[in-house]
Amino acid sequence: MKARVTVTLKNGVLDPQGKAIVGALGSLGFDGVASVRQGKIFDVEIDTKDRAVAEANVKAMCEKLLANTVIEDYAVELV
Amino acid sequence: MKARVTVTLKNGVLDPQGKAIVGALGSLGFDGVASVRQGKIFDVEIDTKDRAVAEANVKAMCEKLLANTVIEDYAVELV
Repeated sequence: MKARVTVTLKNGVLDPQGKAIVGALGSLGFDGVASVRQGKIFDVEIDTKDRAVAEANVKAMCEKLLANTVIEDYAVELV
Repeated sequence: MKARVTVTLKNGVLDPQGKAIVGALGSLGFDGVASVRQGKIFDVEIDTKDRAVAEANVKAMCEKLLANTVIEDYAVELV
């Protein structure tokens, strides 16, 4: 079973990388870009057919490793 | 208008970061993880109400900056 994890910065957390991207897009001639916020996705393949087990496991992986829950939110989607 | 860009490695492209994550998850006690592939997402806020213009602009941003089209695929979703 495959799960897609989406990790994004919490609202209010500054995103210097995003700001740098806005600057770079501006210098490439893209105007009208108000903001960019960058996040991560993980496509996790797990050896189980049980959706509940898979979801619980992936959430635990997020809490322990894939997301920094102090500044990041995560969402798990079974595909 | 907001667009979400999802950038993932093309099939067949090795993902050493993903392999490292599988190893780390294993050492944290998560067994049964067959594979992990990492990607990026960008939430781009653009000052336009025209969906076609927004989509075309964001695709051009992907081609020029947000994705390395040699090894990465990208998908644009207007939110």
